[in-house]
Amino acid sequence: MTTISRLSVQDIRFPTSRSLDGSDAMNAAPDYSATYVVLHTDDARLEGHGLTFTIGRGNEICVKAVESLAYLVEGASLEEITSNMGEFWRHLTSSDSQLRWIGPDKGAIHLATAAIVNAIWDLWAKSEKKPVWKLLADMSPEALVSCLDFRFVSDALTPQEALAMLKRNAAAKAQREQEMREHGYPGYTTSAGWLGYPDDKVRKLAREALAEGWTHFKQKVGGNLEEDRRRAQILREEIGWERPLMMDANQVWDVDEAIANMRVLAEFDPLWIEEPTSPDDILGHAEIRRRLAPIGVATGEHCHNRVMFKQLLQAGAIDYCQVDAARLGGLNEVIVVLLMAAKYGVPVCPHAGGVGLCEYVQHVSIFDYIAVSGSLEGRVLEYVDHLHEHFVDPVVVRNGRYQVPTAPGYSITMHPDSLARHAYPGGAAWQEP
Amino acid sequence: MTTISRLSVQDIRFPTSRSLDGSDAMNAAPDYSATYVVLHTDDARLEGHGLTFTIGRGNEICVKAVESLAYLVEGASLEEITSNMGEFWRHLTSSDSQLRWIGPDKGAIHLATAAIVNAIWDLWAKSEKKPVWKLLADMSPEALVSCLDFRFVSDALTPQEALAMLKRNAAAKAQREQEMREHGYPGYTTSAGWLGYPDDKVRKLAREALAEGWTHFKQKVGGNLEEDRRRAQILREEIGWERPLMMDANQVWDVDEAIANMRVLAEFDPLWIEEPTSPDDILGHAEIRRRLAPIGVATGEHCHNRVMFKQLLQAGAIDYCQVDAARLGGLNEVIVVLLMAAKYGVPVCPHAGGVGLCEYVQHVSIFDYIAVSGSLEGRVLEYVDHLHEHFVDPVVVRNGRYQVPTAPGYSITMHPDSLARHAYPGGAAWQEP
Repeated sequence: MTTISRLSVQDIRFPTSRSLDGSDAMNAAPDYSATYVVLHTDDARLEGHGLTFTIGRGNEICVKAVESLAYLVEGASLEEITSNMGEFWRHLTSSDSQLRWIGPDKGAIHLATAAIVNAIWDLWAKSEKKPVWKLLADMSPEALVSCLDFRFVSDALTPQEALAMLKRNAAAKAQREQEMREHGYPGYTTSAGWLGYPDDKVRKLAREALAEGWTHFKQKVGGNLEEDRRRAQILREEIGWERPLMMDANQVWDVDEAIANMRVLAEFDPLWIEEPTSPDDILGHAEIRRRLAPIGVATGEHCHNRVMFKQLLQAGAIDYCQVDAARLGGLNEVIVVLLMAAKYGVPVCPHAGGVGLCEYVQHVSIFDYIAVSGSLEGRVLEYVDHLHEHFVDPVVVRNGRYQVPTAPGYSITMHPDSLARHAYPGGAAWQEP
Repeated sequence: MTTISRLSVQDIRFPTSRSLDGSDAMNAAPDYSATYVVLHTDDARLEGHGLTFTIGRGNEICVKAVESLAYLVEGASLEEITSNMGEFWRHLTSSDSQLRWIGPDKGAIHLATAAIVNAIWDLWAKSEKKPVWKLLADMSPEALVSCLDFRFVSDALTPQEALAMLKRNAAAKAQREQEMREHGYPGYTTSAGWLGYPDDKVRKLAREALAEGWTHFKQKVGGNLEEDRRRAQILREEIGWERPLMMDANQVWDVDEAIANMRVLAEFDPLWIEEPTSPDDILGHAEIRRRLAPIGVATGEHCHNRVMFKQLLQAGAIDYCQVDAARLGGLNEVIVVLLMAAKYGVPVCPHAGGVGLCEYVQHVSIFDYIAVSGSLEGRVLEYVDHLHEHFVDPVVVRNGRYQVPTAPGYSITMHPDSLARHAYPGGAAWQEP
């Protein structure tokens, strides 16, 4: 038996705002950050690591929230947790109604939940000596369903339906796993499209990305409309009209504004408009989608829980479901969303970038393909070439495709040096001018 | 000119779980708590007080969030803020995109925003020597609209529409103010209906409430259905069938469960079912309302921002709009919701109880009647007889009606003794067995 003896949490921040990496219409100067959790066990060789992603200030609030939740995990045995993971997830999110009050299932307390839950999955996978995607892919449909909490989504998806879907897909799992191992999962790049980049940098990065084999490209929009047009023009000149171009407004528009602006940008034939308005506006997204078709609508990186995703699907509000591995309450909730998206026929294209999100979501998408959706149609996994060097087992991308991770765990463990250097505010990275 | 020199914040908790006051189906043992903010100014006689309400653990996370937001307020002048309060509200909620990330406009960061924003209104009203409702009622429609941020709701309500509504109501403001001063605002009581109370206590409290002149009663449901029926039976025996009885499930049911259970409880002719399911489930509330009519649907105490209320109204999901003065980002956002509700013809019946919520929302409802909705039809303001003794200017209720507050400010200032005694964890109240 393995007991979680102690949870520790660190405030880790990267000073990315100095180079405008990650700049967009809503977030001018992010310092990519992690609320970094380690679950220590009574086995010194076995730890679970997990993080939630923030963009700088506010990370200290998530750290505080992890500290408040820690007592719900410390002292538990891994076997106890994994024998009924669905119940454990409910325990963590709802059994302390005082903590639940400041969500529920949203904001700092839910971001903190993600870091802890993902650390448990990392611990479980390491103890089984498997990468997380493989741990999931090897589970029986019954075992998988027992990991999930269907509370508040049973009107859209029952455990019985989930089970039936997983069973239907089980026969071809081995074949799809083999395919993933050989070819990897298709990705797309946002590296060329940040709002703060000058024209020549956009052009140069687009050329480099083409040379690396990328086939899908995304640009940030929502600043000045003429500048959005100019950068779209540059990207179309470089990537041509056959390769898909996506656009991302990062929530800056009101509903009618989104429609008006995208009707102008429609000349560049965007595949989707991402986060056209408030992430909470389900009906707004549905209206935008209806009025902008055939331009697709994508959202999800700020969609805070399964109840919101349920409604985005029920309302026919999205063409692409962009789950975030650290905004939702960890992998258990992510899997519920994968199942609902599959039922509603909406492809899942997870949000990535930030710090560690690419490392997380490769597991999500590979598992989704092998066991849940069984399809790659309309699916591309975001890739941003930032900060991977800080991870012990970083993503490997070749020819625009994520290569299957093979190391045990959730690929989220950072180098001790990186952690020490980027500890906030004391780390060396924050002492430099 | 008055400058906000410093913000201080305290973690205040009342050990209410010891007596099961406030127990409901989701929240078995709350310790009513406040993240209590004081804005100190360069005028030693002038302070602004505000709080956000939590139910115990987690309050420390909101305190942390207030500390993180403080730099956006400290050093500002009151005149600067009040000369463009709408812009200031946008500044506080969106100008720091790093802090915005861990919401946006939800969870700990938004609860913290509420405490600060309400403290500014308290400061402003005290500097004008008026209660907050009177400060608002005396404003011109133009001045009021300039306090509001219409971002993300302009598809449902434009500033021009808001202005026109306020202008239409302006002529009869003085008359309605006089009416409020003479008769007060109608209330209802939850005191008899807590889930943790035994039958004889329910019966005794119902009789007392009747004797005090209450006409509307609310009970908690969502535990054991048979026990819900038994307490409803007791209440109907005591209050008769003419007086309205409301029911509150505090989010414990899934959509289909809510419908099934309320079809059983329909025999007691409830006026509304409050929080039948997840507070995020707009479409679920709409479905419940459609299938349970003529039982009304009420929600709002956990509805975290104007975008969610907008959709509840657009989707026809609610019969009663229960804004919370400390869950929304303070009074500015509350007023946006009042205006939207008036446009959609939905009565606002604010959530109260907790600690300080009655003190807050009396201002909200009185202002709503005088200047926004101009109607009392279908409107009742929640009242719970807890913890008022800790406030310098507590609510006064006579014959089931809130009497108009007359002291300057937002009625939220607590006695220094109460603050010291309930400081967590050091205060005397937490040192007793």
